Amino acid sequence: MTTQRPDIEVGAVILAAGLGERMNHARVPKPLVRMGGISLLERTYRTLRLGGVRGTIVVVVGHRGDEIARFARDRYLDVKIVENPRYRHGNGTSVLAALPHLPERFVVAMADHVHTPASVGALLACRGDFVAAVDTQPAYADREEATHVRLRCGEVVAIGKGLEPYDALDTGLFVCSGPALQQLALGPQDELTWNAFKRLWLESDRMIEACDIRGAPWIDVDCSPDLRRALDVVMRSVGSGSEGFVSRHLNRKLSTPITRLMLTTPVNPDQVSAIAFLTAVGGAAAMLGNRWRLGAALVQLSSILDGCDGELARARLESSPRGAVFDATLDRLADGLVIAGMATGSGSERAHWAGYLALTGALLVPYTRAKMEAEFGEMPRKLTRFGVTRDVRLAALALGALVGRPLPTLVAVAVSSNIEVARRLGALSYSGEQED
Amino acid sequence: MTTQRPDIEVGAVILAAGLGERMNHARVPKPLVRMGGISLLERTYRTLRLGGVRGTIVVVVGHRGDEIARFARDRYLDVKIVENPRYRHGNGTSVLAALPHLPERFVVAMADHVHTPASVGALLACRGDFVAAVDTQPAYADREEATHVRLRCGEVVAIGKGLEPYDALDTGLFVCSGPALQQLALGPQDELTWNAFKRLWLESDRMIEACDIRGAPWIDVDCSPDLRRALDVVMRSVGSGSEGFVSRHLNRKLSTPITRLMLTTPVNPDQVSAIAFLTAVGGAAAMLGNRWRLGAALVQLSSILDGCDGELARARLESSPRGAVFDATLDRLADGLVIAGMATGSGSERAHWAGYLALTGALLVPYTRAKMEAEFGEMPRKLTRFGVTRDVRLAALALGALVGRPLPTLVAVAVSSNIEVARRLGALSYSGEQED
Repeated sequence: MTTQRPDIEVGAVILAAGLGERMNHARVPKPLVRMGGISLLERTYRTLRLGGVRGTIVVVVGHRGDEIARFARDRYLDVKIVENPRYRHGNGTSVLAALPHLPERFVVAMADHVHTPASVGALLACRGDFVAAVDTQPAYADREEATHVRLRCGEVVAIGKGLEPYDALDTGLFVCSGPALQQLALGPQDELTWNAFKRLWLESDRMIEACDIRGAPWIDVDCSPDLRRALDVVMRSVGSGSEGFVSRHLNRKLSTPITRLMLTTPVNPDQVSAIAFLTAVGGAAAMLGNRWRLGAALVQLSSILDGCDGELARARLESSPRGAVFDATLDRLADGLVIAGMATGSGSERAHWAGYLALTGALLVPYTRAKMEAEFGEMPRKLTRFGVTRDVRLAALALGALVGRPLPTLVAVAVSSNIEVARRLGALSYSGEQED
Repeated sequence: MTTQRPDIEVGAVILAAGLGERMNHARVPKPLVRMGGISLLERTYRTLRLGGVRGTIVVVVGHRGDEIARFARDRYLDVKIVENPRYRHGNGTSVLAALPHLPERFVVAMADHVHTPASVGALLACRGDFVAAVDTQPAYADREEATHVRLRCGEVVAIGKGLEPYDALDTGLFVCSGPALQQLALGPQDELTWNAFKRLWLESDRMIEACDIRGAPWIDVDCSPDLRRALDVVMRSVGSGSEGFVSRHLNRKLSTPITRLMLTTPVNPDQVSAIAFLTAVGGAAAMLGNRWRLGAALVQLSSILDGCDGELARARLESSPRGAVFDATLDRLADGLVIAGMATGSGSERAHWAGYLALTGALLVPYTRAKMEAEFGEMPRKLTRFGVTRDVRLAALALGALVGRPLPTLVAVAVSSNIEVARRLGALSYSGEQED
């Protein structure tokens, strides 16, 4: 049954040849319509790559194919463009047109379906000759418009637009074995939709394995109103997953709408990091001049904006280690300046000592994490459970400034962050004793 | 010729059965004699493991075998003890006694030879059925006492204690294929030294490949005076390889003799890290009390001691990521306190601002490195060339304290370290533009 060899690089075909009739008022063909700052085609491409597709990605074009080919070339997309002159005869013909250019195993994706890399990853873990990603609990997709599938024991047994009753939706994402597909040996077909192909496959007593992505964010972009719902899907998956208390309960609620606005502009994540940094510098300057409330507001605003750069990068699927280092370094610089501004603004010698200790602690908490990740590959599990995160630290500094009590605030930051550093060092020595 | 499969874990046999006649005045059998803080047996064991030996390690014992077996058990050494009752008939019999317990490919090492993990690694990269590590440029070993080898085209063609002329020394380190060794099908032998085995191997028209470790630090510990020379060998290879200017030209010259002294004591690297930290705390306190010269002396002493923990760990072959994190974190804490002490001691408001900026910069230089290593796996090459290292920073702080000029010193540290941070951020953005 299984023809996959583990050392084969999986490829993909993106179907981008259709007429996109319900969106043909747009200036560009549907795969080039922008959603969340990037075109649907680039989004599909990045989703596949981030999901684990390492091999050749073929984009099959037909309707307005020249424009799509030019776009891909201009953006240096690492794809092979294949023209399908028969695209009007159904998108199944586009899959067949791509076959000679694909590696043995490949994903079939639609240029107008929005998925997450995690769903692609889940699909790639399946081994069958023909696997369909289905959704038994669709949250965003239009149940009526979508293709229905009936399941039995993890297999698709029937498929169709109006199929009733049905167990799940076809999410427009598949992984197939090329040699197995070719064994189907189709006779000449006038029309061949991809759905018709799947039915022929089932009728020949072959199996379509179902990979249930249960409730994962995905949507089929059919018409313009779908674009807004697609953005909801994208925003669902932009959290960093490692937020602190203040971030989860306050910052994130404000940063997400801001990110959503930013997504419609050409602003990039590095620029947002820089804006968040400059806002913190403004906060530090305000505190230095004893304008405590303004300082508090700017510091908290900076903390909120600090969530946006990562969200923006994740929404556009362009997170990078480079961006992470840039953002993290500016964050540390900002922390240093805010603490220095607060200590100097308070004007007492004791506040300076609290300031130095708070600054050292505030920089050592992320330093110990980065150093452990560099040395161990990751932070030891038991050290990630608690931790004084940056959102909490900045909220404490803002609150202290708001009530005009810099000294106790600095003392609190100094004590809490240095205790955390000591805890990490202690845990390190302890684990050393056990393991060495 | 080659029977090795790349997925086989290489094992090792350590020959520890001999009489060690020239050292039998010692209270313990020769493999348990301590050199540089650990026994020769543990040193051989760790050298093999650090050099890349992942499979079973067999220790063959004979003379005073019970003591060696008990020692290995008490230290939880991950080795298999094999007794060779015929050990008096030559160390070749010990290799044969180990054969049934070894994986297909294994290293043959002597308990009384000191090597570096790098030499083991070089040997493991060779593919022949019988490979000998030889040294064409021996720096430490006794040329007269050692076994001589004659080479031709990368092969050993003759071998013997008094062989003349000779091209290289036999370093007592080999990698062999077990099945190939068994094919030699030796008849009953009264005596079989390992050297005799090698000659029988050559006489049967088989090949011994030579792996030239040219000038690498190694020595054969025969008698007590050799122990001192062995320590030279060990100290040759304890540099971290990433020292700054002050470290190379001043600190290292003082730290190495200190480390050599420490090696004879039970002090461990973490304790040395702590001592270096406390010395820096003393320096910070002295500066705070305006005792600038004392402060300068303590800070520079701390910088020197900061080299000893790593040297000590490397000399005992017990470097660990855990120790590296512990040391690095204490270093950052020490830097914070010294800068705070200097700024507060100088008593001017401007010195405080210089202090905050110096502190932020001094912590961000190592932070950006750790963060890049965590995100990229390593620091981008072009960023490692220059760099304001800790030894230089502490020397500048000590010098500034010595001449009683805290403010200009802090300004210099603030400017140089923040320029370095800015340079790294700039290089990051630039590489981002090229690669993204």
